Amino acid sequence: MFELPRSASNEQVKYLKRLYRKKTRKNEGKIILEGFRIVLEALRNRVRFQAVFISEDFFSSKEGQAILGQQANFGKIFLLEQKILQEIADTQNPQGIIAIADQKVCPQFNWGQARTILVLDQVQDPGNMGTMIRTALAAGVDGIITLKGSVEIYNLKVLRATMGAIFTIPIMADIDLVHFKEILKGQGDNFKVISADFSGEKYYYQADYGQQTIIIIGNEANGIRAEVLQFSDLRVKIPLIGQIDSLNAAIAAGVILYKIAENRIRENS
Amino acid sequence: MFELPRSASNEQVKYLKRLYRKKTRKNEGKIILEGFRIVLEALRNRVRFQAVFISEDFFSSKEGQAILGQQANFGKIFLLEQKILQEIADTQNPQGIIAIADQKVCPQFNWGQARTILVLDQVQDPGNMGTMIRTALAAGVDGIITLKGSVEIYNLKVLRATMGAIFTIPIMADIDLVHFKEILKGQGDNFKVISADFSGEKYYYQADYGQQTIIIIGNEANGIRAEVLQFSDLRVKIPLIGQIDSLNAAIAAGVILYKIAENRIRENS
Repeated sequence: MFELPRSASNEQVKYLKRLYRKKTRKNEGKIILEGFRIVLEALRNRVRFQAVFISEDFFSSKEGQAILGQQANFGKIFLLEQKILQEIADTQNPQGIIAIADQKVCPQFNWGQARTILVLDQVQDPGNMGTMIRTALAAGVDGIITLKGSVEIYNLKVLRATMGAIFTIPIMADIDLVHFKEILKGQGDNFKVISADFSGEKYYYQADYGQQTIIIIGNEANGIRAEVLQFSDLRVKIPLIGQIDSLNAAIAAGVILYKIAENRIRENS
Repeated sequence: MFELPRSASNEQVKYLKRLYRKKTRKNEGKIILEGFRIVLEALRNRVRFQAVFISEDFFSSKEGQAILGQQANFGKIFLLEQKILQEIADTQNPQGIIAIADQKVCPQFNWGQARTILVLDQVQDPGNMGTMIRTALAAGVDGIITLKGSVEIYNLKVLRATMGAIFTIPIMADIDLVHFKEILKGQGDNFKVISADFSGEKYYYQADYGQQTIIIIGNEANGIRAEVLQFSDLRVKIPLIGQIDSLNAAIAAGVILYKIAENRIRENS
């Protein structure tokens, strides 16, 4: 058993509370991890915490002791009343633990080695964004670019939905159109740019994705902006067989990314 | 402009409130539709409402008047203060309208004509469930079976996530294992039963799905129960290329259902 960590002061609680605002997170360069599961994922990926706030119940639980066993990565540990922890938390059940860590400094994309880059244009729903990050990692995507106007990748709901993928996959976040254009003309120059668009020219399963692919997915309601769509070498569509207008954006991303993965696997076998 | 509808009495508001409980919905055989979008989807699919509760703001809005133009499907219309409507509603922004309709009497599956049936085993997350119903319709699935222990298909979050697909695709809900076994030995006898399982024998893109397919997707955390898995003719897996343990269940369903759709389209062309 570990010793009881020291109780959080009012100042420390205030600091934690402030980090629940997107603006403060950005200025401070921090993220908040809420709950046992995502903290465990972070530890698995060797994330170091600046501070960890835990409830007494969690401290004495099996999960708590297991997690505290990795305290080398923990920075300062503070004890909070369960009630206060719950008041601060975004989720109804923060499972007794909230951690603060640094925002990942955007890892360098390895453009030379990369086969598939996913671009998200103004994806709004945190669940969709997180699920797309998770799916991209699963499907072997080498890096993600989120364009300005997309939901913050450090949003707590996004983090949860990534199931830890956020700690592994390189992401360039919040890129404006001028910068995006530079990337396409620079490092992305050899890539075939393919947009998912319901008025696309080809079905996604008929497309030639080329040796290196940049695949763009758009906003849930409005798709990809015209200013972004113009960069496409090809627009691909997913057939809607039953009587429905559209697919969920994360599903569309999953279907196309796995088609690309399947093609790459077949090439190599 | 329509005349102002009559104000809801306390009794009617109480009845509406009671329907927010799953048990009451089941006993009464009713569903609740919250918000402009889903009400519009319902009207498009010729759903008749027993009662509609609207706020004054919504009544005088363009959307309100457009919707009220279809009042032949409306049953009784009641006016509610915006504040009360918001208190009752499940969503933060019910967009000024809540409607009560009958639970769809399960439409007959056309087993003879059906090519693909989706079975959901204890899917828990309402968003996942709704997205899977929407995706199934898009991918040309002919019917859905949800096994006992799955989230209620008339849950408000499920309804919203289906984006109207709930009104179109035949669903047999809440089927117990004894009944499911009967179905498999009866109407489903000619179908190849394929389970999505991360320890599957084949990759999903290598599988032969047969002329008629029953595809099973399991619980988000635990997959398909052993008692259900035993009915499989084949278990298929989706490759996890990056460092991640699993896919979101709805994404897994989307990837496999669209593979089946692609195969069927290729056969026919």
